[in-house]
Amino acid sequence: MATLLIMSTTKSIHFVQRPEGNPTPDNFELIESDLPEPKDGELVIKNLYMSVDPYMRGVMRFAPLGARMIGGALGQVIASKNPDFKEGDHVLNSAGWGEHVISNGEGLTKVDPDLAPLSTYLGVMGMPGLTAYGGLLVTGALKDGESVFVSAASGAVGSVVGQIAKTKGCTVIGSAGSDEKVRQLTEEYGFDHGFNYKSANALEELRKGAPDGIDVYFENVGGPQLEAALTHMKTDGRIPVCGMIAHYNDHGTASPGPVNLTEIIYKRIMIKGFVVTEFENLREAFLKDMAGWIASGAVKYSETIYDGIESAPNAFIDLFSGANNGKMLVKL
Amino acid sequence: MATLLIMSTTKSIHFVQRPEGNPTPDNFELIESDLPEPKDGELVIKNLYMSVDPYMRGVMRFAPLGARMIGGALGQVIASKNPDFKEGDHVLNSAGWGEHVISNGEGLTKVDPDLAPLSTYLGVMGMPGLTAYGGLLVTGALKDGESVFVSAASGAVGSVVGQIAKTKGCTVIGSAGSDEKVRQLTEEYGFDHGFNYKSANALEELRKGAPDGIDVYFENVGGPQLEAALTHMKTDGRIPVCGMIAHYNDHGTASPGPVNLTEIIYKRIMIKGFVVTEFENLREAFLKDMAGWIASGAVKYSETIYDGIESAPNAFIDLFSGANNGKMLVKL
Repeated sequence: MATLLIMSTTKSIHFVQRPEGNPTPDNFELIESDLPEPKDGELVIKNLYMSVDPYMRGVMRFAPLGARMIGGALGQVIASKNPDFKEGDHVLNSAGWGEHVISNGEGLTKVDPDLAPLSTYLGVMGMPGLTAYGGLLVTGALKDGESVFVSAASGAVGSVVGQIAKTKGCTVIGSAGSDEKVRQLTEEYGFDHGFNYKSANALEELRKGAPDGIDVYFENVGGPQLEAALTHMKTDGRIPVCGMIAHYNDHGTASPGPVNLTEIIYKRIMIKGFVVTEFENLREAFLKDMAGWIASGAVKYSETIYDGIESAPNAFIDLFSGANNGKMLVKL
Repeated sequence: MATLLIMSTTKSIHFVQRPEGNPTPDNFELIESDLPEPKDGELVIKNLYMSVDPYMRGVMRFAPLGARMIGGALGQVIASKNPDFKEGDHVLNSAGWGEHVISNGEGLTKVDPDLAPLSTYLGVMGMPGLTAYGGLLVTGALKDGESVFVSAASGAVGSVVGQIAKTKGCTVIGSAGSDEKVRQLTEEYGFDHGFNYKSANALEELRKGAPDGIDVYFENVGGPQLEAALTHMKTDGRIPVCGMIAHYNDHGTASPGPVNLTEIIYKRIMIKGFVVTEFENLREAFLKDMAGWIASGAVKYSETIYDGIESAPNAFIDLFSGANNGKMLVKL
């Protein structure tokens, strides 16, 4: 096997220019380099799927220029001088946007290709799924039967948030950016109510979907939907903040926050940012629950797959115009 | 004693007009009525001090017109047909703005005039003190040695927040609305750094007072100081929201929130509104701690006292222009 690697090259995408506002193709550079042989203790992974995610926009605020773009990927071991990994193993890695990874084994997670489809380990069975699970159940402290609103609800995280809430007997409202996505929320994902945030009045829709108010707003977007949610929250409501994609590309003239932050006081609302790494201790329970929900059909998922390493910058850029349906992936 | 009451009258202030923006004297009406004799089981309290507080502006959003203004007061029992109270007892009550209270005893709290001066039971030993104590230590989850910023820091709550934080070895920054109040923060209350939010740049002052960032921002005001605090918060920072006095009188054209709410995500910040009633279970510990801190000089306090029931509307209105130094009280 090692001989196959000799003289072979590998492509990766590097972060070379800090974006002002929306990311553009110029922020990235494709680099082709020799793929070295693994040293003792090392292994070589050939990536099969790479993830692009909204959080990467935040990382671009401070990541060093010139470095390989960070991100999760799922690959297969093609050569190993590490006793813990053998050729053929499937592993999650976070070495970033590239066709291959040379690793000493640290930070790799083996996944079971029989438990769920490989690509789901970057989606419902992976980081976005655990983000939804921990953000909703731990940060959001969801109780059975409550009312939940989730924005960006057809996305990789949002669609799972709503479906987990349904398994808890909750009333679930979701918003998305096209009528087709909204249809998917109610018809495929089982949401109770959905609306197109580009054409509908968010507050009216929340009142329609949950007349008595919202207990948990799972925040993915910021902007006017946060304002509507604050107005329609119940006392002791919780707002786990996973993202505010509407604001990530603010530059210079950042958009102001909601005019009704005083609702935080009147209703004793909690707003809390979180990061998926807080939920590492839940991973085992999460994988068990999620595999069960996928098997029973309680959790469905969609994927938008771009092809080839060269397409990664556009896949990432297209996240911000909502071109994806469910988890955005790059297949290598 | 009861004979003294016969034919006597009592004055109270009623809420008669919902304010648009800043409250005005027209929102209130002074009513003089006969003071009835107590029935069996009842007692009569003559109020000595009445409290006016910013939270009352929130109550005016929904309180019924015509009703007596709500609020806490400290008085003395002048007649009692209730076995649990005797003439001369000092009691806290929440019957609102009036010279007398007829009560069946429910919701009254006897206070010890020897433990602390009577007026402090409406201030550092009362609702504002418990608000500071619970909001900082429970909602804010303050740890020893952290960095704390408190706005409206010379007020009834803010001054106690800063001084409690100093007892925990914290670095404390406070803001206030005049140079004289700022001087008081550092020279009398022992804050490490103070600034006048009307003339100084809040972010620069926070960087000066806590170069490594803020762990807890005790929020009393909203507006630009919240924005500066978000920018200068540390990861896992907490923002207990006690009030947003800058926004209470927003009407129609409410002021927008901060432009940098995404800091909530990047730093996993928690923002949480709270209400003092959440901390009822802490009252005993609070009174013990606070009496000790007052006795040792660790907690000092100021009071601004207006005279006579007629002055209550102006005392309340003047809260919003910062005319008070420490706890605003009306002496009857």
